[in-house]
Amino acid sequence: MQGIKDKIRTIPDFPKPGILFRDITTLLLDPQGFRKTVDELVQIHMSSRIDKIAGIEARGFILGGAVAHQIGAGFLPIRKKGKLPHTTIAEDYDLEYGTDTVEIHADAVSPGDQILLIDDLVATGGTAAASIRLLERAGATVIGCSFVIDLPDLGGRARLEQMGQRVQTLCAFEGE
Amino acid sequence: MQGIKDKIRTIPDFPKPGILFRDITTLLLDPQGFRKTVDELVQIHMSSRIDKIAGIEARGFILGGAVAHQIGAGFLPIRKKGKLPHTTIAEDYDLEYGTDTVEIHADAVSPGDQILLIDDLVATGGTAAASIRLLERAGATVIGCSFVIDLPDLGGRARLEQMGQRVQTLCAFEGE
Repeated sequence: MQGIKDKIRTIPDFPKPGILFRDITTLLLDPQGFRKTVDELVQIHMSSRIDKIAGIEARGFILGGAVAHQIGAGFLPIRKKGKLPHTTIAEDYDLEYGTDTVEIHADAVSPGDQILLIDDLVATGGTAAASIRLLERAGATVIGCSFVIDLPDLGGRARLEQMGQRVQTLCAFEGE
Repeated sequence: MQGIKDKIRTIPDFPKPGILFRDITTLLLDPQGFRKTVDELVQIHMSSRIDKIAGIEARGFILGGAVAHQIGAGFLPIRKKGKLPHTTIAEDYDLEYGTDTVEIHADAVSPGDQILLIDDLVATGGTAAASIRLLERAGATVIGCSFVIDLPDLGGRARLEQMGQRVQTLCAFEGE
């Protein structure tokens, strides 16, 4: 999407050699780019009732907070293990080496809540898939997922669509 | 402030025994509470030009992202050490035991930028003071700091005011 992809900066070898890191901080610093990003993230879901925006730590907090405020929804943080102060429920997911965990507060979802999941980037989709399982275990309906960046070579978008998700992405980096 | 303080939950003994943790996730989940919070955070600064909102990782990202979008400013993340992918500048600050570090991208500030700093809570003010020093070293003018919660017993607000900052807080917990 014009005006979004061209404001994302690519950093070679971060966080480790061979990785091309897609850096959205340059997009967020640009008021027009940031505004357009927030507006587009929620665009295809505007016909659905959205009770809460769930944002994945940490870049999903910036985008998700803005989207929640924009549409008048509540904000639900999905955090790494041990960060939330009250009783939590957790979901593990596989990494290339080992596993990782996402958590929400056990009482953060009300029965029947319709939730839109937001993060900056979908790669393998592992974090997002675990987040969806977690929200649904808690009683929510996840009506869709929105990301700024798709890395289609890693298959995350297709994986989430196979889970029945409506997935919105604003730009893609492939074969690069 | 009515409708804000009463939506903040207190969790005893988190992250360690004897600490009363003020949990804003219950406020963020409430659409009216979240909206009011974002609107009030920027209220006293509305007469100033604000180029960028600087939000402190991680809860300051949720609030700062929403405020930046609301007023049409850019968003500048202040992160813990090692999280930002491009060239950074850093500022250390003292903790009860040891030190910690905040970082920004070296090119995130344009000369003359007017920046409003946002976080969820001011306690001793150590993180906020280091963030202000960092932004000013990079060439910004920090026009003020806004927090949802003030813990006046810990003196952070007074410390920031002694640095010349205009400080906005929406509620206080003291002597509790």
